[in-house]
Amino acid sequence: VRDAPILVLGADGYIGWPLSLALAARFPGREIVLADNFLRRRLVEEVGGQSIVPVPPIARRVAAAGEFLSISNLVHAEIDVASTELERLLAEVRPGVVFHLAHQASAPYSMRGAREAVLTLRNNEESNLRLLFALRDRHRDTHLVKLGSFGEYAKAGIDVAEGYFQPTFRGQAADRPVPYPREADDVYHVTKINDSAFIGMACRAWGLRVTDLMQSTIYGVRTAETARDPALGTRLDQDECFGTVVNRFVAQALVGHPLSVYGTGLQRTGLMYLRDAIDSLVELGDDVPAPGEHRVINHVAERGPCVLELAESVVAAAREIGVPAEIDRGTHDPRGEHLSQKPRHRVDAARLAGRATTPLAVALGELLADVAPHRDRVLSACVAPTIRWAP
Amino acid sequence: VRDAPILVLGADGYIGWPLSLALAARFPGREIVLADNFLRRRLVEEVGGQSIVPVPPIARRVAAAGEFLSISNLVHAEIDVASTELERLLAEVRPGVVFHLAHQASAPYSMRGAREAVLTLRNNEESNLRLLFALRDRHRDTHLVKLGSFGEYAKAGIDVAEGYFQPTFRGQAADRPVPYPREADDVYHVTKINDSAFIGMACRAWGLRVTDLMQSTIYGVRTAETARDPALGTRLDQDECFGTVVNRFVAQALVGHPLSVYGTGLQRTGLMYLRDAIDSLVELGDDVPAPGEHRVINHVAERGPCVLELAESVVAAAREIGVPAEIDRGTHDPRGEHLSQKPRHRVDAARLAGRATTPLAVALGELLADVAPHRDRVLSACVAPTIRWAP
Repeated sequence: VRDAPILVLGADGYIGWPLSLALAARFPGREIVLADNFLRRRLVEEVGGQSIVPVPPIARRVAAAGEFLSISNLVHAEIDVASTELERLLAEVRPGVVFHLAHQASAPYSMRGAREAVLTLRNNEESNLRLLFALRDRHRDTHLVKLGSFGEYAKAGIDVAEGYFQPTFRGQAADRPVPYPREADDVYHVTKINDSAFIGMACRAWGLRVTDLMQSTIYGVRTAETARDPALGTRLDQDECFGTVVNRFVAQALVGHPLSVYGTGLQRTGLMYLRDAIDSLVELGDDVPAPGEHRVINHVAERGPCVLELAESVVAAAREIGVPAEIDRGTHDPRGEHLSQKPRHRVDAARLAGRATTPLAVALGELLADVAPHRDRVLSACVAPTIRWAP
Repeated sequence: VRDAPILVLGADGYIGWPLSLALAARFPGREIVLADNFLRRRLVEEVGGQSIVPVPPIARRVAAAGEFLSISNLVHAEIDVASTELERLLAEVRPGVVFHLAHQASAPYSMRGAREAVLTLRNNEESNLRLLFALRDRHRDTHLVKLGSFGEYAKAGIDVAEGYFQPTFRGQAADRPVPYPREADDVYHVTKINDSAFIGMACRAWGLRVTDLMQSTIYGVRTAETARDPALGTRLDQDECFGTVVNRFVAQALVGHPLSVYGTGLQRTGLMYLRDAIDSLVELGDDVPAPGEHRVINHVAERGPCVLELAESVVAAAREIGVPAEIDRGTHDPRGEHLSQKPRHRVDAARLAGRATTPLAVALGELLADVAPHRDRVLSACVAPTIRWAP
């Protein structure tokens, strides 16, 4: 298993590409199979966005990895993960580890209408379910590392356990751990909740080995590998559907658009710098859970500032490179960045405890430096929020 | 709205058919639209089962309703609920109430393999999601009555609230109600959990009006309407996939097969006699929640005996009509009847409190009398449990 190939589903994506590079560099003797059908590229085009960082076609990416990193163990397979192609690919590759990142990951996109909602449901839940059955039937010892979302958890001003908790209700203490309450207000996050329910079932019923990450918001583009050449860059979306909070702040700052802070600005979210996330994923892939253990990890590097402080940090970092940014206090929260206004509780993160993380100011400085050369790719139509979720 | 048509999704099914008859009889001035694509009939045939009670084709059923009950307000529409046909039907019918019972409802079937699991996922979750978006876009005041499952709840020896609860964790009290923990060990029940997550989202985000029933196991075939003529009977499945616990006990008793009691036999489940369930559903359809209220009802008429007591009750009822039944203490629980061994907690059921229910002995007597004439339709291959869920 330690020499077996590694399969990355969603390998052409924001996290998938730098993860694939990092795995290839770390394990030169293992084949890294890049599965993707370019759904993300198509959807960003559909909503009128574009990656601020230019992303070459996958063939060029793989060639650049050879050219600039001497990486020769990447293989691309174009498949739709929500189809029987997934089972066939698994049978062919026989991976030791599968990283499943092939999600339609935009909450606003998933709420546009029935077509987009059903696309999200099928792409996310059906791929997850097909993967679980394929592991059950033919690959029982393969380690599945699945990207869930920290936004799955219901926010109620109590500590956020890792997946399971033992609550007390009406003075009765639960006699075993049960799933921590999940709740979300958009289709995308609900599909992640639902994936977690299927994974828990599969671990208990079939003894699968799964690491299920409750992933916090990721920001940044620089990793040890992507920094080596522009052709190795990972995408950075700016539009309202696919751009996440920090990345959008940076895009807004670079084109002189005020940074949009919704509501009170006191909402907090967990944050993780891309490089820290990739390093952690590479480590976790080889840390295989026992059969039947549904290992849930709160993948949150730091508690993170509130949104207003975050915007202020971006403004400060921008001013350091001579960009005069400012903040606009808006009124709505169309993307639902799963923010909590209740900072008195704690987020459990036992497995990440003590890990070094890149300080926010350092990370933001890198991000602005990485994005500034591409500021002509920021689309003015993209930086202002317009989507309303309810008709 | 009070004169608007009523749409029953899954109207050809075990609950859907007698519910449709009851609605037609109760509201002669309202059109009752029967949507079904006969999936249940096809799947029962696929697994080698058959309904013990003969069920005529839908056209004959509708004709018999006219002939024996003078019902003239039934209209059948053959549609796949997990397709855009659903939106078109809603736009055409403009229902005041939609009962959504169109589920692939077998846990063992859903666990057979990827094909059956994906069929269950698409049929159940996609239909539910399409329905929610159709209500959002065009039918905001329509009342959705959705059949969930009592088996969605995680069992942990604490009281079972109705959908939401305010737990205490590490001495911290939740500051608002959050979803009661859900957990299930088969694909079918997980799809019901997932439907609940989507419904909660839709109520909060869009202000829909939904009654979401956590339905306990239903048994029996006799209602005021079905009793009027054999052509009006509802199906009673006997096979291991689609037959539920009491109905299967009765089938076993009638052909002299020992009643299969799995494990200790001390497991308990909520039970509801079909006639009581139908009466309750008819009432609930006109009890419309406020916009945005996700009204979850634990649809459990009585706590129910443990499985062993239940088997003993069937044996007693069988002996009363001269059938010498006996019990076999088996070893596994392939259907996962969401049974709890912990009877010390309470199941909340505020809206059902004080309702009259048919006593178990009376109901079992009726059921045996109703099924005995069809005992030649009990298939010996069906009555013995054989499915194993894990390969």
